[in-house]
Amino acid sequence: MENWYPDFDKGKGLLPAIAQDYKTKEVLMLAYVNKEAWEKTLETGEAHYYSRSRQKLWHKGESSGHVQKIKEIRLDCDSDTILYIVEQIGGAACHKGYKSCFYRRISKKGTIDICSPKVFDPKEVYK
Amino acid sequence: MENWYPDFDKGKGLLPAIAQDYKTKEVLMLAYVNKEAWEKTLETGEAHYYSRSRQKLWHKGESSGHVQKIKEIRLDCDSDTILYIVEQIGGAACHKGYKSCFYRRISKKGTIDICSPKVFDPKEVYK
Repeated sequence: MENWYPDFDKGKGLLPAIAQDYKTKEVLMLAYVNKEAWEKTLETGEAHYYSRSRQKLWHKGESSGHVQKIKEIRLDCDSDTILYIVEQIGGAACHKGYKSCFYRRISKKGTIDICSPKVFDPKEVYK
Repeated sequence: MENWYPDFDKGKGLLPAIAQDYKTKEVLMLAYVNKEAWEKTLETGEAHYYSRSRQKLWHKGESSGHVQKIKEIRLDCDSDTILYIVEQIGGAACHKGYKSCFYRRISKKGTIDICSPKVFDPKEVYK
């Protein structure tokens, strides 16, 4: 393997991939990538992941249309985490309709507030 | 467990935690957190992780002095990924001296360029 290639062996075939908004730099989500998803992402310019729950290749946005256009790909120092810098079509990465999956801010005391805007109603998008 | 609490069972005790710079919003690193590291982070206001290689609690910066002061903590929709928004003391998160561990940008053709500044010389910091 070239040294720019993710070391999938480290994660037993699956590595975490962070998606970050290319304009606002907000962290949108984290999902997992296997070799097939990595290669599909490079080939198509749209973010692909491996769905652990469905146990198959997941082209993000395949049902909602909310694909992620790849602007940049970065790899960490240990070659075991991937960063996709993306344009999030539809404005929301979260299946619950929020811009970011990280929409809950936790205080030291364990209280929660919502810190990412709700962009769509999931009932309208996933019919 | 409260619904604001990370679901450590999902990751067999270990969940990924992303560290993001609170000012520049650059993604600095990803490491893993267990219940002990999570509670130490809440208690001390400095990022703690679980070192998979050393198999023990890891107070980031304990040897280099480059601790991460917690500004915000966010939790994702599935409660299985944590986002630490931090002030990175010393200006660099990467043990190789770069500001971000994600210092390598990968092109479609597999070429690499360096996209994060080198802040320190590891030989000077880790003696």
